[in-house]
Amino acid sequence: MSQSDDSYMRAALGLGRRGMGQTWPNPAVGCVIVNAGRIVGRGHTQAGGRPHAETVALAQAGAQARGATAYVTLEPCAHQGQTPPCANALIEAGIARVVAPFEDNDARVSGRGFEMLRAAGIEVLLGVCTEEAARDHAGFMKLQTMGRPFVTLKLASSFDGRIATATGESQWITGAAARADVHRLRACHDAVMVGGGTARADDPMLTVRGHGDVRQPVRVIVSRHLDLPMMGKLAMSAKEVPLWLCHGSDADSYLTEAWSGIGARLLPCGLRGRQLDIVSVLDALGAAGLTRVFCEGGGALAASLLGENLVDELVGYTAGLAIGAEGLPAIGAMGLERLTQAPRFELLESRAVGVDVMHRWGRRL
Amino acid sequence: MSQSDDSYMRAALGLGRRGMGQTWPNPAVGCVIVNAGRIVGRGHTQAGGRPHAETVALAQAGAQARGATAYVTLEPCAHQGQTPPCANALIEAGIARVVAPFEDNDARVSGRGFEMLRAAGIEVLLGVCTEEAARDHAGFMKLQTMGRPFVTLKLASSFDGRIATATGESQWITGAAARADVHRLRACHDAVMVGGGTARADDPMLTVRGHGDVRQPVRVIVSRHLDLPMMGKLAMSAKEVPLWLCHGSDADSYLTEAWSGIGARLLPCGLRGRQLDIVSVLDALGAAGLTRVFCEGGGALAASLLGENLVDELVGYTAGLAIGAEGLPAIGAMGLERLTQAPRFELLESRAVGVDVMHRWGRRL
Repeated sequence: MSQSDDSYMRAALGLGRRGMGQTWPNPAVGCVIVNAGRIVGRGHTQAGGRPHAETVALAQAGAQARGATAYVTLEPCAHQGQTPPCANALIEAGIARVVAPFEDNDARVSGRGFEMLRAAGIEVLLGVCTEEAARDHAGFMKLQTMGRPFVTLKLASSFDGRIATATGESQWITGAAARADVHRLRACHDAVMVGGGTARADDPMLTVRGHGDVRQPVRVIVSRHLDLPMMGKLAMSAKEVPLWLCHGSDADSYLTEAWSGIGARLLPCGLRGRQLDIVSVLDALGAAGLTRVFCEGGGALAASLLGENLVDELVGYTAGLAIGAEGLPAIGAMGLERLTQAPRFELLESRAVGVDVMHRWGRRL
Repeated sequence: MSQSDDSYMRAALGLGRRGMGQTWPNPAVGCVIVNAGRIVGRGHTQAGGRPHAETVALAQAGAQARGATAYVTLEPCAHQGQTPPCANALIEAGIARVVAPFEDNDARVSGRGFEMLRAAGIEVLLGVCTEEAARDHAGFMKLQTMGRPFVTLKLASSFDGRIATATGESQWITGAAARADVHRLRACHDAVMVGGGTARADDPMLTVRGHGDVRQPVRVIVSRHLDLPMMGKLAMSAKEVPLWLCHGSDADSYLTEAWSGIGARLLPCGLRGRQLDIVSVLDALGAAGLTRVFCEGGGALAASLLGENLVDELVGYTAGLAIGAEGLPAIGAMGLERLTQAPRFELLESRAVGVDVMHRWGRRL
């Protein structure tokens, strides 16, 4: 692997990231085509999952693809879907060399894309920027292997970990810059998820604002009994922006029909004791094709995700104000007995965002 | 003011900082003497408050002080104390020019030191690095003007603002690097303060460890009834390291005598309702000469300091673990009704410290 392989792959990863949150159930792939040291084609998977990154980049490269190197952030597909496989397209365009981080773990592709390329005499180099690529494709990979989406849990709280006062006042604890940063994070996830309590208390819209004309993330509400306001912003916008409701299989059929009628998609989930089983909720979201879910609380939903070890990334925005012990806790009851049972995360990044501090944590390896 | 005035003053401020926490009730002053572009003397107020910075720097400069510029981080003293005033010493040494940030606000000095220098024909330049100097001398200035020390409140908590599990387990939430950083902060304060609950629960030593042979900060325990363990580490070390007990004026005389007998200093304080009046506590600490107090909790003491707007700096160490709502809150009940009543701070700094995030906040200007 040369240094330039590395830097072209980084460019391809950067392109791929533009599709994050926009391409599900497909992966957000990036592709750069380089001929004689010059980039002749760039592409990333388009909103909705097609055209694929390779198709876009090859179209841009045209005749200059002949003899060129293609940097792709995931193994080119080998199966006939709605469009012919990308491996074919690379062969037909006369690509001489393909560089990628690793094989796709989608059973329909795994290794077969590279096999097709090699059989056609194309040189294949793997192992470039594997770590970054694994991070970028974590949602897609997790869905393939475990059938569940990657979960980012965001909590915006006071210095002492409160998300509202005792009376429920929460606007605003963090500043405008942190709130804008949350929209950036929403935009790179397939779905935004909150619990029923938060939906009732805040009447949120949960859309991405300030990022141009993006494919809006699905809005997922987790509510066993579907006791959500029919006159709220979520209900009233259900025909414009997808609204999915994860509810108990025992929810009132009058309510499921009413929500269905106004355009919401209903996902019945299993129970565990008197609560919705959070594993069943994520399984349902995975089965529906979501690869990256951004959970914004509240405390009860956060606690069940953490308690079941379902959080892949934790993002905190801490404001410089003190609310005190009567305030609403960012994370609800977890029933821990010992400190060693507390789920621990590894610091990935921390920085000031406007007047607040942002800190991002990942799973401990 | 020239650029070099600025950089010599910064050097003097750096020297002064070495005395922080060591010089009370005196200010931690720094002094640099420069002759023909060469630093010929350096000094800072020594542990216990004397000799003063100017004395140390002049002794080092010797004959080279003649015609030189002295950079002092606070107005040289003008009053006869245990030693002759520093203004005199500067005059006698033949210093030609004195650069300082601003006047001392100690009534015994204010303006008079500079007057003496000017009367002796010395050029005096003020206004250099005023902001940094004001920050460094904030404790001394606050004691002079308000009779109370500067208070830093430190809270080391989980991601969700908990300082212990429901069962009181708190060792360890943050990592070794954050704990070492706390010792650095203890060392630059005159006193470390905790509430009685923390003293009972943690049996802490509250000394500075790992920083060589420093003057140990006074250990202050705030406990209305003095219901503290006589066999604990604090009690057993009271003869070696100062232990001050802020208690209610109604505390049992049997207990005040016992604690006195083992070497603790007793500071009777006023009550407000059924609690110790925190303003009275800080007044007592100010009257005893403390300029910088480092409060390490618990939640109740933190809440009363914040509630009375007595916190000058807030330092958080946030760990990447989730304890949940049953955990012990970092800040106790504050009785806030609206979010606008919550005390707000301004972010000064944030960075990773080992596996945790450190964030430091100051008063909003």
